[in-house]
Amino acid sequence: MILMMKREADKTAVNRVEKQLEQMGCRSVTIRSSEGVIISVTGGNRSECLQDLALLPEIERVIDVTVPYKLASREIKKEKSMLDLQDGVSIGGKEVIVMAGPCAVESEKMLFTIAEQVARAGARVLRGGAFKPRTSPYSFQGLEEKGLKILAEAGKRTGLKIVTEVISPQDVELVACYADILQVGARNMQNYSLLRKLGKQQKPVLLKRGFSATIEEWLMSAEYILAEGNFNVILCERGIRTFETYTRNTLDISAVPLVKNLSHLPVIVDPSHSSGDSRLVPALSRAAIASGADGLLIEVHPHPEEAFCDGNQSLNPREFQLLMNDLADFTRACERTLNTDNLSAKNFVKAI
Amino acid sequence: MILMMKREADKTAVNRVEKQLEQMGCRSVTIRSSEGVIISVTGGNRSECLQDLALLPEIERVIDVTVPYKLASREIKKEKSMLDLQDGVSIGGKEVIVMAGPCAVESEKMLFTIAEQVARAGARVLRGGAFKPRTSPYSFQGLEEKGLKILAEAGKRTGLKIVTEVISPQDVELVACYADILQVGARNMQNYSLLRKLGKQQKPVLLKRGFSATIEEWLMSAEYILAEGNFNVILCERGIRTFETYTRNTLDISAVPLVKNLSHLPVIVDPSHSSGDSRLVPALSRAAIASGADGLLIEVHPHPEEAFCDGNQSLNPREFQLLMNDLADFTRACERTLNTDNLSAKNFVKAI
Amino acid sequence: MILMMKREADKTAVNRVEKQLEQMGCRSVTIRSSEGVIISVTGGNRSECLQDLALLPEIERVIDVTVPYKLASREIKKEKSMLDLQDGVSIGGKEVIVMAGPCAVESEKMLFTIAEQVARAGARVLRGGAFKPRTSPYSFQGLEEKGLKILAEAGKRTGLKIVTEVISPQDVELVACYADILQVGARNMQNYSLLRKLGKQQKPVLLKRGFSATIEEWLMSAEYILAEGNFNVILCERGIRTFETYTRNTLDISAVPLVKNLSHLPVIVDPSHSSGDSRLVPALSRAAIASGADGLLIEVHPHPEEAFCDGNQSLNPREFQLLMNDLADFTRACERTLNTDNLSAKNFVKAI
Amino acid sequence: MILMMKREADKTAVNRVEKQLEQMGCRSVTIRSSEGVIISVTGGNRSECLQDLALLPEIERVIDVTVPYKLASREIKKEKSMLDLQDGVSIGGKEVIVMAGPCAVESEKMLFTIAEQVARAGARVLRGGAFKPRTSPYSFQGLEEKGLKILAEAGKRTGLKIVTEVISPQDVELVACYADILQVGARNMQNYSLLRKLGKQQKPVLLKRGFSATIEEWLMSAEYILAEGNFNVILCERGIRTFETYTRNTLDISAVPLVKNLSHLPVIVDPSHSSGDSRLVPALSRAAIASGADGLLIEVHPHPEEAFCDGNQSLNPREFQLLMNDLADFTRACERTLNTDNLSAKNFVKAI
Repeated sequence: MILMMKREADKTAVNRVEKQLEQMGCRSVTIRSSEGVIISVTGGNRSECLQDLALLPEIERVIDVTVPYKLASREIKKEKSMLDLQDGVSIGGKEVIVMAGPCAVESEKMLFTIAEQVARAGARVLRGGAFKPRTSPYSFQGLEEKGLKILAEAGKRTGLKIVTEVISPQDVELVACYADILQVGARNMQNYSLLRKLGKQQKPVLLKRGFSATIEEWLMSAEYILAEGNFNVILCERGIRTFETYTRNTLDISAVPLVKNLSHLPVIVDPSHSSGDSRLVPALSRAAIASGADGLLIEVHPHPEEAFCDGNQSLNPREFQLLMNDLADFTRACERTLNTDNLSAKNFVKAI
Repeated sequence: MILMMKREADKTAVNRVEKQLEQMGCRSVTIRSSEGVIISVTGGNRSECLQDLALLPEIERVIDVTVPYKLASREIKKEKSMLDLQDGVSIGGKEVIVMAGPCAVESEKMLFTIAEQVARAGARVLRGGAFKPRTSPYSFQGLEEKGLKILAEAGKRTGLKIVTEVISPQDVELVACYADILQVGARNMQNYSLLRKLGKQQKPVLLKRGFSATIEEWLMSAEYILAEGNFNVILCERGIRTFETYTRNTLDISAVPLVKNLSHLPVIVDPSHSSGDSRLVPALSRAAIASGADGLLIEVHPHPEEAFCDGNQSLNPREFQLLMNDLADFTRACERTLNTDNLSAKNFVKAI
Repeated sequence: MILMMKREADKTAVNRVEKQLEQMGCRSVTIRSSEGVIISVTGGNRSECLQDLALLPEIERVIDVTVPYKLASREIKKEKSMLDLQDGVSIGGKEVIVMAGPCAVESEKMLFTIAEQVARAGARVLRGGAFKPRTSPYSFQGLEEKGLKILAEAGKRTGLKIVTEVISPQDVELVACYADILQVGARNMQNYSLLRKLGKQQKPVLLKRGFSATIEEWLMSAEYILAEGNFNVILCERGIRTFETYTRNTLDISAVPLVKNLSHLPVIVDPSHSSGDSRLVPALSRAAIASGADGLLIEVHPHPEEAFCDGNQSLNPREFQLLMNDLADFTRACERTLNTDNLSAKNFVKAI
Repeated sequence: MILMMKREADKTAVNRVEKQLEQMGCRSVTIRSSEGVIISVTGGNRSECLQDLALLPEIERVIDVTVPYKLASREIKKEKSMLDLQDGVSIGGKEVIVMAGPCAVESEKMLFTIAEQVARAGARVLRGGAFKPRTSPYSFQGLEEKGLKILAEAGKRTGLKIVTEVISPQDVELVACYADILQVGARNMQNYSLLRKLGKQQKPVLLKRGFSATIEEWLMSAEYILAEGNFNVILCERGIRTFETYTRNTLDISAVPLVKNLSHLPVIVDPSHSSGDSRLVPALSRAAIASGADGLLIEVHPHPEEAFCDGNQSLNPREFQLLMNDLADFTRACERTLNTDNLSAKNFVKAI
């Protein structure tokens, strides 16, 4: 259940409602935003609550969430959410944010080199896995905390923000120490313990769509994070599982305009995992921006042929630079901007 | 099996090979194109043929087609195919060709009105079904020949080319009398009798991807038409069937750059059937062009809410005009052109 | 629209209604069955018809078919349909009918041998393709009429009924001359010209489910045949296309009890195409019978490793004999019968 | 990497290898079974390890696991695994084990009643969720520890074993205190932190197939548990996500014989979640046993129409009793047994 407090409701009024909910055996989380105060309520006897709460004078509206996602929807929040990533970078606005980097952090040297290269080409965020969820228990599982430290150091050196995956609730605090954005991978989209834990901290969360999740399930998973009080959620379309085998997954491009209609949250696209084929990345990046995506998540590896994982979907740094050059004009034609606009001409020319 | 004749092989040489094939019990079709003469061979004892034919001096190369599609592939024909639709219109070149019109031809009045409207907005081809393959035997099945006549008349009045569906081999000749492009619908993509019949005439064929066909199966179906001697095939991606239910089908946008890599044939996208939702058509049209599509197939109906079929995926004429205006600049940014560039300013302004 | 005539309506009454329909511009087919007379109506102005027809005294009920399949449903016909295959063989009753044979008719010798072997093991129907719908135009396409003649001769020698595929409306009459059951393959499930043609003759039709057809679409395709007046339709579940690649298709076993609830038509299962793996055929055959299937369609080839097509899903004759022996007891436990019960002990023992 | 020790290798030999692995920077788990000693190795420099280990005299075979699942495969263990569930109950042998109970533990009274009813009808294991992974954060999430206590008490009263879901690594110890079998739900099949934690304890784990997991991914997830040293894994097929919407999921019946060929682990089937429709449960239960399943997981609720979740897929106690009666004979015909054989006639008669 969602309670929307009246505009004029002050702190005392909110406290009164919170206490009332406690007495009813409900669990509540109070969320303050520019649109006013919202209280997300779980537990308790639903029909009883609905009746009693409707009577409280400080409540504007009681929304019964038997229909699914609510906090993630445009009903609750009309305008698009713009997430502040700090230091003048934000996502969900006019700028298309490019996040780039290797599948996994393999070594300090490798990561520092690639970080510098993607920064020079116009990326805003560095991606790289320190905890890797692998299908096989015998595959490389990531450098863990050592990897996180390398990422943070690379971020400091280049000014790039850091996005990295967290795969277990008990690692959330650790990862949040080092990363600017915490990623939930496709396999964990319905790992509700993880989602709840991420909802209880305030770092932005990049929520990948499960490879077989419907759009509704995806938004419901976002709702888990929002319902705990963290509104900083970025949705990432990364391809769904279909019968087609020429691509690793099928990029569901329609999900971009559709989700942007249904939800106020920013939506980005991962053309690398969608296709599993670096040759398709440029065309899919353009299609993503054309359909309204707020950002791209692209795999770049210094030597894709030697990558510990996912080599054939990675661009090399030169290919990434060319892609960014190509996207610069294209993005402008879509009335969006790209960070390349901010790079000095000198920098840009010398890049690679 | 595919035989490529030597560049210098003259008519007599070709005849000699044809006779030889006949004696071997093979069925052959000779295809003359700007790249030289190709003979498509079916039937006969494969291994025997391979051996004997390799000895003939006029043959450049014998290609064993145990690997799938050949004539449709870039191996046989390096450069993109550009199909002549007559009167200065062609598909597969720089211009993005827009085909628009109603799902079904409902009446003369309705079609003439819509034809004029889409022509004014910049469409090059008028679409409209006279033979409708419907899931239910009790649904409206089309005006049949009467519908074809209305289409042809609308084409004459507006200068638009006509594309319409053919659903049975015995109707091919009839439909070819009236239409400029013959459409094979998704349900008939593997109706091989129909494909063969279409291969034996020379009108361009628009081959829609089956809603559950892999890219390989789709190209193999094109191969059926090509192997009979008709190289005028346009491929149309129209969404595949997946678990997602928020859209009617899932537009497989990756198929566009992928098929353009694998095949020389032009590829267009149908954003209307892909999504089943007219609100998504503008974003998907942009994504299609951004990914490299050579054209769009868009449903436009004067009163979508009253359409005999597929109403909620149709744009109304005003929405279509707005879309074309929007795409004009966008297409230019993609270094392609749109017919709107050719319309006189006066025409264009008055259009809405 | 479906009209159910009153029980007492005589020929004159039926004629009166038929004429009325003609005047309304409708197309009607009259179907006489043990439950009375049903008239299937297509074309005409729907709402007008509904109004006028309701007034006619000889009509019991007018069923508006805006909801899908009707003639195929249990609503129209409460009890299960039992189809007479002649000579004491029928499908849809207590006996589980086994149809067996090779994917394609390759030669007279091969077919006669296999026919004798499957007959001895207890099959009732011989399967074998004379017209083969192949993904590649360069693959073996069947012996066509020559193949049909071989099939008919094999039927005469062994007493087996013949089922074979028809892939084009213009071949229906030819195939009906030789076969006892006409098969519609998965790729042609929505080839409506073919379905209509099959509805206009009376030989039983075995309608395979399209590999991506929903149960509703499958029943709608059956409806096409029924609406033309042929009620002799057998449904065949043969696996659907999913993301799983360890099996060629995914046998949708739930479809068996589900369709038997929804429809009165007999349902059989093809465990060979479902799995594409002969090692799974015994377990899937048992599962099919356990779930209520009225028959099995099994590929048997004298030398599966040399088959022109689909070798690795074929049983060899010895494996088929062992399967039938195994199924004999099992079928009895399911309170069904198998033809093995009718074979003389002597015959049965000596069989291979 | 998997090391198989020689049959004659004693404890000292095993220790020597373990130490060597430690020095190489590898992580190892030693698993003792009736077939001898196996050491599962993760981490370290793979190619270096392979070389060095091959030289050790006490090692029979070094298996490189670049091919997927190994410990779960028939290669490592030829005979079927039979898991001891204590007190004379085991799974993977001749008896088909039926697990039954409600989706969620709703109250003490409700659970005690249903436990008694399913025990009387022949179930061996009581199912019921105390931690519920729900798509919506606002749905009922289970009674948690209170629910576990009720389950354990119901087990004590009836002699039924308890299976219940665990959804987070930090809950594993708690759930293991009360349950006999720990269930991993479909959404958590690739929650690797959870799988590893379950591998480090010895209670049997029931691993449900993810609704979009391939058979290979499913076996790889089992491998995660086995690689940590817990060989007590039961696989549960519960339907996969496909385009078909008449059933909630599509039961992949072929997975049963297939997985039993590939793996030594017991396989059970959940006909309730597969179909989402209690009317299909009897036919699917029969099909499961016919295809070789070692058990069934069936939802039973005292008043399905009032269930907190998944009501329309639950049988009521009377329907469950009828199903068990029906399965008793059927199971015997499949040369398996059912616990109903052990119930006293008196008990059995009075049951309904």
